[in-house]
Amino acid sequence: MNHDYSLTEIAEFLNAELRGDGSVRITGLNTLQDAAAGDLAFLANPKYASQLSGSSAEAVMLKAEQAEAFAGNCLILDNPYLGYAKITAWFTTVSCAVAGIHSSAVVHDSAEVEDDVYIGPNVVIDAGVKIASGCSISANSHVGSGSVLGQNCQIASNVSIYHDVVLGSGVTVHSGSVIGADGFGFAPKAEGGWQKIHQIGGVRIGNNVEIGACTTIDRGALAHTVIGNGVILDNHVQIAHNCVVGDNSALAAYSGLAGSANIGRNCILGGDACVVGHVTICDNVMLTARTLVTKNITEPGSYSSGSTPMMKTTDWRKNSVRIGQLNDMAHRLKKIENEK
Amino acid sequence: MNHDYSLTEIAEFLNAELRGDGSVRITGLNTLQDAAAGDLAFLANPKYASQLSGSSAEAVMLKAEQAEAFAGNCLILDNPYLGYAKITAWFTTVSCAVAGIHSSAVVHDSAEVEDDVYIGPNVVIDAGVKIASGCSISANSHVGSGSVLGQNCQIASNVSIYHDVVLGSGVTVHSGSVIGADGFGFAPKAEGGWQKIHQIGGVRIGNNVEIGACTTIDRGALAHTVIGNGVILDNHVQIAHNCVVGDNSALAAYSGLAGSANIGRNCILGGDACVVGHVTICDNVMLTARTLVTKNITEPGSYSSGSTPMMKTTDWRKNSVRIGQLNDMAHRLKKIENEK
Amino acid sequence: MNHDYSLTEIAEFLNAELRGDGSVRITGLNTLQDAAAGDLAFLANPKYASQLSGSSAEAVMLKAEQAEAFAGNCLILDNPYLGYAKITAWFTTVSCAVAGIHSSAVVHDSAEVEDDVYIGPNVVIDAGVKIASGCSISANSHVGSGSVLGQNCQIASNVSIYHDVVLGSGVTVHSGSVIGADGFGFAPKAEGGWQKIHQIGGVRIGNNVEIGACTTIDRGALAHTVIGNGVILDNHVQIAHNCVVGDNSALAAYSGLAGSANIGRNCILGGDACVVGHVTICDNVMLTARTLVTKNITEPGSYSSGSTPMMKTTDWRKNSVRIGQLNDMAHRLKKIENEK
Repeated sequence: MNHDYSLTEIAEFLNAELRGDGSVRITGLNTLQDAAAGDLAFLANPKYASQLSGSSAEAVMLKAEQAEAFAGNCLILDNPYLGYAKITAWFTTVSCAVAGIHSSAVVHDSAEVEDDVYIGPNVVIDAGVKIASGCSISANSHVGSGSVLGQNCQIASNVSIYHDVVLGSGVTVHSGSVIGADGFGFAPKAEGGWQKIHQIGGVRIGNNVEIGACTTIDRGALAHTVIGNGVILDNHVQIAHNCVVGDNSALAAYSGLAGSANIGRNCILGGDACVVGHVTICDNVMLTARTLVTKNITEPGSYSSGSTPMMKTTDWRKNSVRIGQLNDMAHRLKKIENEK
Repeated sequence: MNHDYSLTEIAEFLNAELRGDGSVRITGLNTLQDAAAGDLAFLANPKYASQLSGSSAEAVMLKAEQAEAFAGNCLILDNPYLGYAKITAWFTTVSCAVAGIHSSAVVHDSAEVEDDVYIGPNVVIDAGVKIASGCSISANSHVGSGSVLGQNCQIASNVSIYHDVVLGSGVTVHSGSVIGADGFGFAPKAEGGWQKIHQIGGVRIGNNVEIGACTTIDRGALAHTVIGNGVILDNHVQIAHNCVVGDNSALAAYSGLAGSANIGRNCILGGDACVVGHVTICDNVMLTARTLVTKNITEPGSYSSGSTPMMKTTDWRKNSVRIGQLNDMAHRLKKIENEK
Repeated sequence: MNHDYSLTEIAEFLNAELRGDGSVRITGLNTLQDAAAGDLAFLANPKYASQLSGSSAEAVMLKAEQAEAFAGNCLILDNPYLGYAKITAWFTTVSCAVAGIHSSAVVHDSAEVEDDVYIGPNVVIDAGVKIASGCSISANSHVGSGSVLGQNCQIASNVSIYHDVVLGSGVTVHSGSVIGADGFGFAPKAEGGWQKIHQIGGVRIGNNVEIGACTTIDRGALAHTVIGNGVILDNHVQIAHNCVVGDNSALAAYSGLAGSANIGRNCILGGDACVVGHVTICDNVMLTARTLVTKNITEPGSYSSGSTPMMKTTDWRKNSVRIGQLNDMAHRLKKIENEK
């Protein structure tokens, strides 16, 4: 995987204005600070502008106003960070899998696998599965009966996809993730204990969705669990049964939705932000890290709870014990105000 | 998997009183709102009673008092939700595995596998394992040496069961879960760093336990980690070494028990409710979502901590900074009271 | 796996002073309370000293001052808990894997595997991987192209190691864990949605690191994600891209580091303690359970946030609602003080 492109090639791909020598060879990407000869760097955050002059980068992606004072080779972009993001695909370190089904894979006779698909060693594909062109399924993953993968899905190793799960095109699933396990549905029995509610619904995932590692998306109880187009899920995310996640929403690590939670489009959940069951959140809502949502949100904006200021543990103990006295303190304060 | 039953058959199974035409064919389950011809629906929550008249369901499960005003086919039950839960087994979408050991499975010669067991592709069964009748182990799962599965256990794909783990009968384990990994036991060394404490205990799991996806139950340090009968664990749950979980307790997603925590019977832990090490909780305790338990609970009831009210982030910042001043505020309030 | 050692053998291994009969046979380890004939017990916590006289242990590890009043066989150690930790390796219940590559494993021709390595059933080793002597890789795990395992690494079953991941020597990885999945890097697109940033960096893990079950360590965006020597990670831990974890730090279950967080040496993160992105924590910092770190920590010590006192839910509701009024309360208190 040697990467070697001319700066001109990259400029054309990014539709960027090239200043300087377009024939220089770009063999890597890096930050301004760490870049060496052959590296293309980028200046996205103005606070790093001072690194520009000292950088050893072969060329830099930056905005027009930042380019004025820069004498080196550069690509001028409205959004250098987006330019960096786009060009990373040219420098990926992962080998492209060659299409074909490994001899150790177990593919059911009734599965329909298109020609240019890679199925790795010890992958198991059950009856009636459909896998569209361009898909890649890495070692030891499992796709359950009747599930469907759209074009160009990338399934990493040790992924578990249950039956009746439909992925759109361009879906990436990282290792250890589980799609379509039973939702946590049980009815209390009169004599104590729990009666399992078999989960009859499936999972429907849109196009261009990215699912991190050790993330779970449960199947629906009756209807399906639904993930929209362009959704990105980090690691250790939990999507319970019958949740709906709107297009382009982003959920950071440990963020979780309890059963039938419904979140809108373009929402961003910070790490460990959780939503209780049957709550609805409108489009364009941001939840800061650790927020717990216990009621509907109907207005776009940023919401928070739970993440109190960090302090020395000795100070925390003194302050946190007062939280248990807060209602009493409020009443006493009111009393004083009334007595004046 | 065509599902087609007469309403009479279902009434008999549920021991329900049938009103209307018992010969109608039931081919699916659904909510009142989404039900179509052939669907059996249920009315469990009275707030949905108004949906009864407009539902297209073929038949409805409901309580006697709700049936009075309903002219359609119905099954009368004391607990319609429980009836729905019980009948879901008839409408499951998962194919029943045919007994047999797949040719790609690796089963040690010394393992004892009863006749009507399904062992899927690439499953690995180590030495001395015992698997009782009716068990099903799906693709790419692993059972370590000397472990025992009671009758009718259902192990999904990519499950890891270490050595010396004993499951009772009717235990379900979803994908990505790990039972019997080492507990997190280390002794600090004088020169810095950590001396590993090899975990010699095993794991003992009762009957009719359900374990979600990506959930971990660590093996014990000296004695076993113990999960009682009828316990239900959601996804991403953590049970540390030497914990004891009482019969019929339910732990929602991300709820976790640190080492040697001991929780009673019929406890319910909301999402992300965690219990620190060596703490004991009595029977019939409910912990709301996000609660952190740092000391013993000796009285049944519902307990909470941590989940503060959600608000706009700008408001949260103003309020949360005051938490760091609470002890000071409490002293100042007391001073004012004393000065009166 | 019969364990049977003389007390003298154990005394020599631990460099302990032996009192009593060194010829007694030790066949197990246990607590003072549960020990039976043949068991070696330990007294680490003085509060259990009263159990010494009634214990049925064959012998006990304890401190010199505790040995004075004890008539039984004993091993005298400065740190009995450390002695217990060290001797657990002699009583482990896990079978030692015999070196060799199972016939069902798929090892690429270009992989370099040293002679005394165990590669279990259905393990998949990709091109260019190097596996040093003494390593053991259990069933159904996957090692991606170009990754390197130092000597004596123990990889449990169903582990996923991506490409370009380098483990030092003596690294243990438990089941379900994922090392080297893509970091959660996306640039917002002008038209909405997310442009994936391919993650070009790898993962570098030091020597004698222990990684629990269902734990994730993401690969770096440009530079590597780095885990120091002697680090111990519990289950469900999340290490995002480009984090750096200093030597001998310990992270309990659910503790997580967001992107580019940098924590020092000898830090201890309690359960669910999380660090937001680009934050730096100095050496010797302790974070109590549930703490959220949102800014740099530059002084050693113990820090906390978030974990409020637990109380009855009815009391919690009354108090927690006041948190939303705290800023107002603070202003009212100030007003009263000013009016005096």
